[in-house]
Amino acid sequence: MQDVPLLISRILSHGSALHGTSQVITWTGESEPQRRSFAEIGARAAQLAHALRDDLGVEGDDRVATLMWNNAEHVEAYFAIPSMGAVLHTLNLRLPPEQLAWIVNHAADRVVIANGSLLPLLAPLLPHLTSVEHVVVSGPGDRSLLAGVTPRVHEYEELVAGKPTTYDWPELDERSAAAMCYTSGTTGDPKGVVYSHRSIYLHSMQVNMAQSMGLTDQDTSLVVVPQFHVNAWGLPHATFMTGVNMLMPDRFLQPGPLAAMIEKEQPTHAAAVPTIWQGLLAELGERPRDVGSLTQVTIGGSACPPSLMEAFDKLGMRVCHAWGMTETSPLGTVARPPAHVVGTEQEFEYRLTQGRFPAGVEARLTGPGGERLPWDGESAGELEVRGPWIAGAYYGGEGAQPLRPADKFSEDGWLKTGDVGTITPDGFLTLTDRAKDVIKSGGEWISSVELENALMAHPDVAEAAVVAVPDDKWGERPLATVVLKDGATADFAVLRSFLADEGRIAKWQLPERWTIIESVPKTSVGKFDKKVLRRRYAEGDLDVTRI
Amino acid sequence: MQDVPLLISRILSHGSALHGTSQVITWTGESEPQRRSFAEIGARAAQLAHALRDDLGVEGDDRVATLMWNNAEHVEAYFAIPSMGAVLHTLNLRLPPEQLAWIVNHAADRVVIANGSLLPLLAPLLPHLTSVEHVVVSGPGDRSLLAGVTPRVHEYEELVAGKPTTYDWPELDERSAAAMCYTSGTTGDPKGVVYSHRSIYLHSMQVNMAQSMGLTDQDTSLVVVPQFHVNAWGLPHATFMTGVNMLMPDRFLQPGPLAAMIEKEQPTHAAAVPTIWQGLLAELGERPRDVGSLTQVTIGGSACPPSLMEAFDKLGMRVCHAWGMTETSPLGTVARPPAHVVGTEQEFEYRLTQGRFPAGVEARLTGPGGERLPWDGESAGELEVRGPWIAGAYYGGEGAQPLRPADKFSEDGWLKTGDVGTITPDGFLTLTDRAKDVIKSGGEWISSVELENALMAHPDVAEAAVVAVPDDKWGERPLATVVLKDGATADFAVLRSFLADEGRIAKWQLPERWTIIESVPKTSVGKFDKKVLRRRYAEGDLDVTRI
Repeated sequence: MQDVPLLISRILSHGSALHGTSQVITWTGESEPQRRSFAEIGARAAQLAHALRDDLGVEGDDRVATLMWNNAEHVEAYFAIPSMGAVLHTLNLRLPPEQLAWIVNHAADRVVIANGSLLPLLAPLLPHLTSVEHVVVSGPGDRSLLAGVTPRVHEYEELVAGKPTTYDWPELDERSAAAMCYTSGTTGDPKGVVYSHRSIYLHSMQVNMAQSMGLTDQDTSLVVVPQFHVNAWGLPHATFMTGVNMLMPDRFLQPGPLAAMIEKEQPTHAAAVPTIWQGLLAELGERPRDVGSLTQVTIGGSACPPSLMEAFDKLGMRVCHAWGMTETSPLGTVARPPAHVVGTEQEFEYRLTQGRFPAGVEARLTGPGGERLPWDGESAGELEVRGPWIAGAYYGGEGAQPLRPADKFSEDGWLKTGDVGTITPDGFLTLTDRAKDVIKSGGEWISSVELENALMAHPDVAEAAVVAVPDDKWGERPLATVVLKDGATADFAVLRSFLADEGRIAKWQLPERWTIIESVPKTSVGKFDKKVLRRRYAEGDLDVTRI
Repeated sequence: MQDVPLLISRILSHGSALHGTSQVITWTGESEPQRRSFAEIGARAAQLAHALRDDLGVEGDDRVATLMWNNAEHVEAYFAIPSMGAVLHTLNLRLPPEQLAWIVNHAADRVVIANGSLLPLLAPLLPHLTSVEHVVVSGPGDRSLLAGVTPRVHEYEELVAGKPTTYDWPELDERSAAAMCYTSGTTGDPKGVVYSHRSIYLHSMQVNMAQSMGLTDQDTSLVVVPQFHVNAWGLPHATFMTGVNMLMPDRFLQPGPLAAMIEKEQPTHAAAVPTIWQGLLAELGERPRDVGSLTQVTIGGSACPPSLMEAFDKLGMRVCHAWGMTETSPLGTVARPPAHVVGTEQEFEYRLTQGRFPAGVEARLTGPGGERLPWDGESAGELEVRGPWIAGAYYGGEGAQPLRPADKFSEDGWLKTGDVGTITPDGFLTLTDRAKDVIKSGGEWISSVELENALMAHPDVAEAAVVAVPDDKWGERPLATVVLKDGATADFAVLRSFLADEGRIAKWQLPERWTIIESVPKTSVGKFDKKVLRRRYAEGDLDVTRI
């Protein structure tokens, strides 16, 4: 067989030629969105590559960062930068500024391409960025914010204008770096995950498999999941492979504009985290719109509440769970129910799992004592995965050596996901907790998430977080931290009985330690920040009752 | 990213574990077909590998041949042999015996696994096979035919019985040989195409993409295309990737049994060459059956006549053209009409093309003078392709060096398909002729196939073949060889006018040389054997009229 490397430039060339009339549609907040054909994207990607090379001096595996919303220019950067041999570094604009600066410096980005609307975030960072030589600005926004900065400032459109619309993309090693993305990292410094051309190519094929997202050129995908979030789950690459139109919300991520763009552009598919959908659902309840085109919705990032899934089913939008993480490119599982349960009551149960592993992702469960656990749907262990689009290391230890911390990679090279869950005999994953949050009590594991969900089912509880605290007898025991609703009357004894009732929680798992808090601390991406609670407990900052 | 090789053993492990309840259903001609779950196939593949290694001494990249119909045991061989590191060599049971013997000797097969029903073909060959040490027989058939042969004879079921049901599959180089298949080769010796683990893995992903066959575990695929014919178009591998059930006809390839198995097992998909479907259609006309489950039919091997496509449409079976060849694994194109023509009159035109190239297959057209031709839907040239599942050489020249004949591979490594056609701007291929059959007349190309189709549209013509013959003035001119129907009255002048009428054929392309023949000579796979006609013309064996 011919030894043809799997390169992103091949995806680009294919999409822009054979699916040249497919479109990237970017919402502008005005009546008419920006429409750019794949052929134009291909031509402009070539122009951008010429500009980066000739005007900005990008060479070798230089890192070029993007601080951008989902839009056509960001897609152009997605293809131009890796295709020319450089490395696309997508910056998460939701991170705290000091973390962003740390990440840019750690990656040694030479160029930042930024949307004008994000200059208020970028400008104050620039004095702290040690490697950035050029800033390229695209789209509306106040350029005066960049007055007096050290890096040279360029207009995206001026850079690309007049450049040749084709580029002789180099034949690279398919294992060379194509893109990178830092995990937000609730503990320690952020960690860079480097995607190769090979991993992105294979991942794109997987996304396009009928058993995964299964999109074709008959589809339009509303890509709400940010391009700075694990390559928008691989959609920009996957769509160029098959001519799927992309509908890009740019900065218009509020429920109102999302409903408007669905009604106007009639996407058939959408991908986003649950909170986005919760907002959209409320919006549609208040202001009904024709969203009938949207029949398939991929939800990842965190689990979709069953009530939300049912509400979308009623609207004719079929929700499909997927699970993954920055380190898994991200497609790790997709929850398409197996043939034998379709049409039965079990179908919904299967849809609530995180999903089934595809052929490219091998999985195993490791128990509290390091033992391998069976796939029986009951044994909970830490999930470890292996595959050609799974990270084998992090970027840049000393001397740019790859980092393989022992809590992240097993001795035989599998990724330790840090997620705890069960797997059914037919390979469906259900996550029950994060490994760092699970309570190791007397050699058994107690799921903090299970306790939290059970607590939050009580009508008086607004939010609840459960963390492990040291215990002389059991090693660790759960501490329940509860946010009560206004006017709530329940006390800890009532809540404890509620947990025990109807076997919701096994008796030995019930918390003895309880405390009321004002609100649960959250990370930059809106997840419970349990390390703050653990620290507050350790510092004696919580008023704990034992019952 | 982790450096995990793309191996067939991974497809097997995935399918037999995560899709363990999916089935290979083999027709037995009796009321109950044989049903074997993917889990059982996985266990038996491991047993077969143990038997091949421990009992038969298979090691390294030894070639193990199969002379088998489509059935569960053949699927087991498909996975066991490459997974253990050996090379699966599928033998085309339709080839003339002397060619089969040549092929087995050329590949130096050490073992042949044969269906009992094929022993009448195999037994007389054995004295001519120089490398075969073992014959393994599976399924019904008269074993006495093997009495007194030199190789040791084994029963498949006895070999696998009691062997361990797991095997520690080796971590191979993904570029190592996994399987091979010889082209039937109308000119010269047959040529071996060697598939690697990588090429088969990537091809399987492509087959499963929604834009290609797009099957999931909700499907059952009736695999009529033989497993000895380019790996049954990749279906056994692709189905194990996603849990698609396989319905295998074994030796029951006649229209009656095919209709019966469709009615009983309700496949959703089927794959076969047009002649099979023509027979099935006639059968269903005579004896209607419930074939409503079958909604998607992949047709390849040669073009599907429009009338057949329409007839299947009426039955609710959506025909989808695909094009490929042994050298392309085979998936080269799939004719899913582009979004913008769906529902319009153009849709049917697009479905009649060979289809669009997927991202993994790059294509170009080379004209009569070696020039690159545009994708304008009109310029006809020889199709050349490149990609990770496209052959880069043939097997086994002197000293097992790869063979790269200049008429098959361009200097820069692309495969010359030997097919002549046009490509639309959006990448849809229409084949018009074989390069060796096209008539090179005064620097222009005349399609022999176009002339044949136009001739065969005349009611008096049963069959017609057109071949190039030398011409002093033009280099080459077409010779029309015609088989008339019984009682036909048309003469050559009438036929010539018929061709010219309504602009069917441009005037300069009309044949001057005509002859009547009894029947068109055919190759072993039923294609017109034009070299026989050319030879008969050269030897003065045809009674040619010039008009």
